[in-house]
Amino acid sequence: MVINYKLVKEDSRSMARLGQITTPHGTFETPVFMAVGTQATVKTLTKEELEAMDSQIILGNTYHLWCQPGSELIKSAGGLHKFMNWERSILTDSGGFQVFSLAKLRDITEEGVTFKHHKNGAKLFLSPEQSIKIQNDLGSDIMMCFDECPPYPSTYEYLQKSVDRTLRWAARCQIANKNKNTQGLFGIVQGGEYCDLRKHSAEELVKMNFDGYSIGGLSVGEPKEIQNKVLAFTTPLLPKDKPRYLMGVGSPGAILDAVERGVDMFDCVLPTRIARHGTAMTHNGRVIIKNKEYEADFTPLDEQCDCYCCRNYTKAYLRHLFKANEMLGQRLLSIHNVNYLITLTKRIRQALKEDRFLEFKEEVYQEYGLYDNDKDF
Amino acid sequence: MVINYKLVKEDSRSMARLGQITTPHGTFETPVFMAVGTQATVKTLTKEELEAMDSQIILGNTYHLWCQPGSELIKSAGGLHKFMNWERSILTDSGGFQVFSLAKLRDITEEGVTFKHHKNGAKLFLSPEQSIKIQNDLGSDIMMCFDECPPYPSTYEYLQKSVDRTLRWAARCQIANKNKNTQGLFGIVQGGEYCDLRKHSAEELVKMNFDGYSIGGLSVGEPKEIQNKVLAFTTPLLPKDKPRYLMGVGSPGAILDAVERGVDMFDCVLPTRIARHGTAMTHNGRVIIKNKEYEADFTPLDEQCDCYCCRNYTKAYLRHLFKANEMLGQRLLSIHNVNYLITLTKRIRQALKEDRFLEFKEEVYQEYGLYDNDKDF
Repeated sequence: MVINYKLVKEDSRSMARLGQITTPHGTFETPVFMAVGTQATVKTLTKEELEAMDSQIILGNTYHLWCQPGSELIKSAGGLHKFMNWERSILTDSGGFQVFSLAKLRDITEEGVTFKHHKNGAKLFLSPEQSIKIQNDLGSDIMMCFDECPPYPSTYEYLQKSVDRTLRWAARCQIANKNKNTQGLFGIVQGGEYCDLRKHSAEELVKMNFDGYSIGGLSVGEPKEIQNKVLAFTTPLLPKDKPRYLMGVGSPGAILDAVERGVDMFDCVLPTRIARHGTAMTHNGRVIIKNKEYEADFTPLDEQCDCYCCRNYTKAYLRHLFKANEMLGQRLLSIHNVNYLITLTKRIRQALKEDRFLEFKEEVYQEYGLYDNDKDF
Repeated sequence: MVINYKLVKEDSRSMARLGQITTPHGTFETPVFMAVGTQATVKTLTKEELEAMDSQIILGNTYHLWCQPGSELIKSAGGLHKFMNWERSILTDSGGFQVFSLAKLRDITEEGVTFKHHKNGAKLFLSPEQSIKIQNDLGSDIMMCFDECPPYPSTYEYLQKSVDRTLRWAARCQIANKNKNTQGLFGIVQGGEYCDLRKHSAEELVKMNFDGYSIGGLSVGEPKEIQNKVLAFTTPLLPKDKPRYLMGVGSPGAILDAVERGVDMFDCVLPTRIARHGTAMTHNGRVIIKNKEYEADFTPLDEQCDCYCCRNYTKAYLRHLFKANEMLGQRLLSIHNVNYLITLTKRIRQALKEDRFLEFKEEVYQEYGLYDNDKDF
C-alpha cells in the first residue's frame, strides 16, 4: 500500500489506539490532528509556523482548489506540495462535502453531481472520475473517494440508496486513480445514524481494500450521543491495520470521545476559524480575547502553552490587536489554537503510552470545563 | 544627548551622507528606512520577520495608540517596546499629522487642538504637553514635537502664523519631556514651500538644540519639484552632527532624491499598504500580482531579492493567494516590500561608501522604470 499504518498499542480499557502512519512525504504518530489548508494555505500561517508546532500533515480542499487556481495549474507547478511550499504530508478531501454543503441547486445522478459554484453560480460537474483526476493533479498523499454526504436527519430509505451509490462511486474512484504508487485512497463509510447501513457500507468498502477508512456523514448537526454511538459501532468493523479518519471533527471534547472509540485522524477548520474571530482554546477552556477582563492582563494567553504566541505576547496585547482589527492578532491566535490541538493529540499519545488514556480524558474535560459547558470547545 | 548621531562620510558630489545613530535601544546606520507600526504592530508582521530583514527602528503612531489601547495602558505594560515585544529602536510621531489629516472639526488655539475622533466622533484635545505625556508613556526612543501640519497649498500669511505657533509649541514640548535621559526629542521644521519661513523655522529650532530635526509639511500633495527644492534649501540650515528625518516619505524615487539632498531617516506606510492591495516594489519596478500574466509564472516575485517571500514562493502562488483573499498573500508581500526599502537604503549606504551614490541613483531610476512612470513607486 502507498499508506502504511502500524498499530503500536491498543488501550486496554477503551478502543483508543496508538499508531504510526507513513506516507510518501513522511511518518507521523497517531492520533493526529490535521490543520485545514483549504485554499493551499492554512489560513494566515506559513510552513515554518506549522513545522514549529510539529504539524505533520495538513488538509487541502479539492473543491476550492479546483475552482481557484485550478488543479491543472497546480499540476503544472509540480503539484500542491510544491505550489504551496509544504514538504510534509497532505490529505485531500473529495469535494463531496462542499458540493453538498456550499453549492447550490445540485442534481445527483448515477454519473455524478451537477451543481452551481458557491459564489459565481457557474455550472460545475463532479463525478468519482473527475474528483480523482483533480486529486491526482494535486498530488496529495492521501485522497478521498467521492461520496455523497447527506444531511442530518435523512430518512432510512434515502440513505440506503445513497450508501449504495457511494459504494459504486468508491469502486469507480479506485479504477480512476492514475497514481496508485504515489497516492493513497481512503474509502468513506456512510450510513447516517443507522447501524445496519453503516455496517453494510463498512463491510463493502473493506472488501475493496482501501489504504484507510474515513467515517463520513458525522459532525453534520447530529447530537453528540449519536456521533459517539455511530463511532463505537463503526470502528470495530474496520481493519485494525488501516488508519481511521473522522472527517471534520476538531473540538477538544469530540477528539477525545472519538479517540476513545478507535479513531486515528482528525481535521477541522475550528481552530483557525474561531481564532480569526478572537476565540482561543486553552488549558483553562475557551478565552474570548476581546473581553474587557483581559484589557490590562499582562500574562500569556495560556500559561501552560509553549507556542510562539504564548511565549511572546500578553492577553492585553492580543486584545488590543483584535480591538484594532490588526491581522497579527488573527495570526497569533491561529498559531495558538492549531498548536493547542496538535499538543492535545500529543498528550493523548503520551497518555496511551502510559496506560492512562481514560484518566487523561477526564482531566481535559475538567481543565477545559467541558462538563460546565454546552459547547464542546 | 539621548540620541547620538555620528557623521561617517559626506558625498563629494551631492549632499548625501552616511551616518550612524545610537538610541537607548541600539545603533544603526543611516540613511535608514523605518517601517510603520501604527497600532503597535507593523501590519501583518512579527518582530522576527522584521529582524530577519534587518529592520533596526520602527515607527509608532501616538494618535492611534492614545485612542487604542490608550497610552496609560501601554505605560502599565512597561512601555511600547515591552507591550509589542520589540527590543530595537522606536520613533513616535506627535499625533499632529493625524489631527490634521484624519480628525474632524478641529479648533486650533495657542493652547492646543480640539478635534473629534476619526471614527467614533468623541471630543479630544491634544497639546504639546499632552502629546509629550503620551509619548513619555509610550517610552519611544525618539519623540516628535507636537506641530501643526498645514495642507498644501497654504497661504504665506497662514503659514507664517502657524510656523511661529509651532515654534512656541516646540519650546513647550522640550519643557514637558519628563524622560530627558531616556527619550530623545526632534524638532520639526515647517514653512510649506516658502524658503524664508523654512529658514526661520529651522534657525529657531536649531537654537533650541534638539536631538535631531524632522522636515515636516512635505509629502502632503505638493509637486515633486517643490519637495526637492525645499529639501535642498532646508538641510544645509540644520547642524551636521544631528540626524535629519523626512516624515512620511517612502517611495524609492523620493528616498533617493531626499538622500541626495541630505536626509538620513525615512518612514512611510507605502510598502505595507500597497502590499495589502497586491502591489510589490521590485528590482524591475512595480508588480501588480493579481495580473493575469502571473497566473502560471512559477518564478519568484523578484529574482534579485533574498527576502523570505522571494526565497520560498512563486508569483503564481502569490497571485492565487490574492485571488482567493488569503491573508498569507498580504503577509508575504508586506515582507517583500519592507525588505525592498530596507535593502534600498543598504544599497544606498554601500554606494556612498564606494563614492558612487549619484550613479547608483541613476541605476535604480533605470531598473525601477522611474523615468517611464508617472508614479514614483
